[in-house]
Amino acid sequence: MDTKPFPSDIEIARSADLAPIPEVAATVGIDASHLIPYGPHVAKVELDVIDEMRDLPDAKYVVITAITPTPLGEGKTTTAVGLAQGLARVGRKPVLALRQPSLGPVFGVKGGAAGGGYSQIVPMEMLNLHLTGDFHAITAAHNLLAAMVANHLHFGNELGLDDIQWRRVLDVNDRSLRHIIEGCGAKTDGVTRQAGFDITAASEVMVIMALATSLRDLRERLGRIVVGFTKDKRPVTAEQIGAAGAMCVLLKDALKPNLMQTLEHTPALIHTGPFGNIAIGNSSIIADRVGIKAGDILLTEAGFAADMGAEQFFNVKCRAAGLTPQAAVLVATVRALKSHSGRYEVKAGKPLPEGMLLESPEDVEAGCDNLRKHIQIIQDFGVQPVVAINAFPTDHPSEHDVIRRVAEEMGARCAVSTHVKDGGAGAEDLARTVVEACNDEVHFTPTYDFEDSLETKIRKIATKVYGANGISLDPAAAKALAMYTDQGYGHLPVLIAKTQMSLSHDATLKGAPRGWTLPVREVRLAAGAGYVYAICGSMMTMPGLSKSPAAMRIDIDADGNTVGLF
Amino acid sequence: MDTKPFPSDIEIARSADLAPIPEVAATVGIDASHLIPYGPHVAKVELDVIDEMRDLPDAKYVVITAITPTPLGEGKTTTAVGLAQGLARVGRKPVLALRQPSLGPVFGVKGGAAGGGYSQIVPMEMLNLHLTGDFHAITAAHNLLAAMVANHLHFGNELGLDDIQWRRVLDVNDRSLRHIIEGCGAKTDGVTRQAGFDITAASEVMVIMALATSLRDLRERLGRIVVGFTKDKRPVTAEQIGAAGAMCVLLKDALKPNLMQTLEHTPALIHTGPFGNIAIGNSSIIADRVGIKAGDILLTEAGFAADMGAEQFFNVKCRAAGLTPQAAVLVATVRALKSHSGRYEVKAGKPLPEGMLLESPEDVEAGCDNLRKHIQIIQDFGVQPVVAINAFPTDHPSEHDVIRRVAEEMGARCAVSTHVKDGGAGAEDLARTVVEACNDEVHFTPTYDFEDSLETKIRKIATKVYGANGISLDPAAAKALAMYTDQGYGHLPVLIAKTQMSLSHDATLKGAPRGWTLPVREVRLAAGAGYVYAICGSMMTMPGLSKSPAAMRIDIDADGNTVGLF
Repeated sequence: MDTKPFPSDIEIARSADLAPIPEVAATVGIDASHLIPYGPHVAKVELDVIDEMRDLPDAKYVVITAITPTPLGEGKTTTAVGLAQGLARVGRKPVLALRQPSLGPVFGVKGGAAGGGYSQIVPMEMLNLHLTGDFHAITAAHNLLAAMVANHLHFGNELGLDDIQWRRVLDVNDRSLRHIIEGCGAKTDGVTRQAGFDITAASEVMVIMALATSLRDLRERLGRIVVGFTKDKRPVTAEQIGAAGAMCVLLKDALKPNLMQTLEHTPALIHTGPFGNIAIGNSSIIADRVGIKAGDILLTEAGFAADMGAEQFFNVKCRAAGLTPQAAVLVATVRALKSHSGRYEVKAGKPLPEGMLLESPEDVEAGCDNLRKHIQIIQDFGVQPVVAINAFPTDHPSEHDVIRRVAEEMGARCAVSTHVKDGGAGAEDLARTVVEACNDEVHFTPTYDFEDSLETKIRKIATKVYGANGISLDPAAAKALAMYTDQGYGHLPVLIAKTQMSLSHDATLKGAPRGWTLPVREVRLAAGAGYVYAICGSMMTMPGLSKSPAAMRIDIDADGNTVGLF
Repeated sequence: MDTKPFPSDIEIARSADLAPIPEVAATVGIDASHLIPYGPHVAKVELDVIDEMRDLPDAKYVVITAITPTPLGEGKTTTAVGLAQGLARVGRKPVLALRQPSLGPVFGVKGGAAGGGYSQIVPMEMLNLHLTGDFHAITAAHNLLAAMVANHLHFGNELGLDDIQWRRVLDVNDRSLRHIIEGCGAKTDGVTRQAGFDITAASEVMVIMALATSLRDLRERLGRIVVGFTKDKRPVTAEQIGAAGAMCVLLKDALKPNLMQTLEHTPALIHTGPFGNIAIGNSSIIADRVGIKAGDILLTEAGFAADMGAEQFFNVKCRAAGLTPQAAVLVATVRALKSHSGRYEVKAGKPLPEGMLLESPEDVEAGCDNLRKHIQIIQDFGVQPVVAINAFPTDHPSEHDVIRRVAEEMGARCAVSTHVKDGGAGAEDLARTVVEACNDEVHFTPTYDFEDSLETKIRKIATKVYGANGISLDPAAAKALAMYTDQGYGHLPVLIAKTQMSLSHDATLKGAPRGWTLPVREVRLAAGAGYVYAICGSMMTMPGLSKSPAAMRIDIDADGNTVGLF
């Protein structure tokens, strides 16, 4: 064991030697003329670079996903960052695409998010606070539409809006805004009605930004947003409200991805940040379209486990982007597999149960059905899985051996990575394994066809991906599916909003649950984003703060430095 | 008359030849090492420049104010921009300090605001949309405090908050959010109570940003914010809620002023934007502290007329900044003086009454009491007034002559400026006149002493500045004044929230109303901003949209350019 104390994330980040961002861009062929600098270490990338590089070959497209996590998370971001650093060390030109963190969680439970240890994105303070203002632009555009909807009601409701679905958003954890009554006060103070706020990451505009392939596509998607329905169930769009153009103007700059760097100067595109359990938890297509031409391997992170972010990545994002995935890195940890044994309960903000730290390959083995299922999910998409063991100091080699054996039995590659402790040097094995996987042939096979009915699409995801026996539709959900089909939305892909803590809809079911049915409580339309989503369980779209939120520990010190952010 | 059509503001701005922002900074001695670029034409200025330049002499400090305006505005910003350009043409090194426009009005009635004609700030699109995100940071900091207050209630209200004064803010015109009930839904969804949103420009955090003299001062002011009172009338602060540190971290970058340029490359610091009728309608002290050392004349704009923004500038801002004002440019127009005759009614969004465009020195003369009163207000502060006639193509020389005669009778200098049509060249006369005024001796005399009681301060402003006979205090207002005095806030300056459309509290009283009393309906505390404010009349803190707001005309065109913003 090491005897010198391991420095904190912020100590490592503060002592980092950052490269000027034009130098970082130049390593992957992006000229400074395409950069809009935001200080010396962050730049937006102009979208004309996509057109300029269109004749270059595509990089290998690799998604970073994970097994079903504990509430602590299994280090998918650190692995993505470490792997990018490792790939650069073995002679490749990787580009990393990650989501931007939300302010809500930063000031809520977890403080900042920028990777960890020697695998971080820097400057971490910019990443975790406003960055270049994209989330704020999304908040502004979303709420402009909400104000114009409320204004439309106030001036007589010419379009006959009856069932209004468009809420407001703020990038803060504020439970008191989940359900409000607006338009109280005098008659001049708007129409009185029930309303509410979601967190900005849950905004449909966030998803639209993630899925838009160009400024023109963004404009069209904004126009297609359905803000609600008339009494006779006709959809009313943002285009009809007259808001889509102004929203697009507010979002023009935010559509340009943000270039940052890892601690080892690997280029990282940070862009958009939709919630992984209720929206498409992926970074943006625009960032990937830049990255796919800039490097020779593009690593893109998908939120939560392979049943969530990766399923959405393959079935929705890759098809909307017209990009073919090559491989999937499946991050696994000893602690998560032990928790899937059902023998331990891991809680956020609490230390691990003591028994979990003892050497026990048996506990790992007992949880490995979860790993097997996620490997199979990836293989079913026709894509190469690479199991990445994110090694912790408390792991034992015998426990890693179990994971490796299970992966290899399933025909998957596997490598151990110590990137948190060792940076890119600790991820070189993993990097070489990923490079190997990138030479395999791929037969990309989505789970469903767009021609399938909406119900069939939901059923195929539930049975083929999650391993359910079938689905049960609430009558209201069935009615909504019929309505959306009538309205011409039947060709859209579907998204399942469910817990990330289980392959099923029930967070308490660990491992690889069998013999269960996915209950679809409600179905909603996100016509701008371009999908119908099925809500399975009660999803939180506006988090609350704990009694002692992280914000209470965050401050500036006497020298004006930020403290407590990590 | 010109026969070629005058190009639109946006045509002029688009065809402008912008200088790289480091070059603009260099003209006033700010080295590129102190700049944080946001693209090629905007930069934040690092605050260490203030300390580095502290031994340089102070520039002459000139405030741009106006007579009581019509609802159309009298071109105070265009005059400030034109005058800055004119000063550069006559060999001075001017620096301009302006407020950042709010998104609410941009998408509401008026579209963008960036000056006009050949006197504009560029790039106008950045100025009018997100700029560098400062307003968004203020929104985020304000609402983080609100969320933490609501969270404090949810977890048992240990501090015993009873009367909560802290509302939420959004930078959008949304009347439906003025009065809401929050915390509806289940018990886990927060405490049910009446609440509401103001526009971001009306946030106390906006004023705090405008008045803070350093990052440390910002941190302390944030901590002093009073979010509400206990049952026994003890104030509860943001410090006690534990939010002030995190708010300061969110605002750290926003405290750095934004450097932009005029069409003629004069440096312009754009920073903060408090509402002029309910808050201190001035740009920031920080921007002025940079500008006062950078150039040889610092022009700073104060919102609305001399009874509003300039009164606040002299009595509050100059004293908080420790800066001595030298002169005040008083913008006057023929149309505003004609409207003060009481013979015409000017309405926003409507063409001028036809008769107003006919040559009539008599109408101008009939409105000149308003001009006289504003000249006297400035003279009472011991500062030199310079009347700037903002010339319109429809003006007649005989009308300008009246204004000049009245000004000179009062002992004030006067010059005509055609900066909208002619840019800096049209403001050279005005520039020379201002330079002259800058050589006069100044005996700066605020209206009241901090030792005066709060009531005395209000009375002195009402009688000495506005020309009222006295004030009448609602019993609740008198009680609040006594309470704030008991709590130790009696030494604070006061601010009067009233209409900008009259020297009185009644928008219909034109000219220089006599024989009236200022009714103080309510008194509130802004302990973080550092003043007590008296509300006279019903002030709008959250505007609404019209039936056809500007947002409906704003869009991108086929080439991705913004259209309809001006």
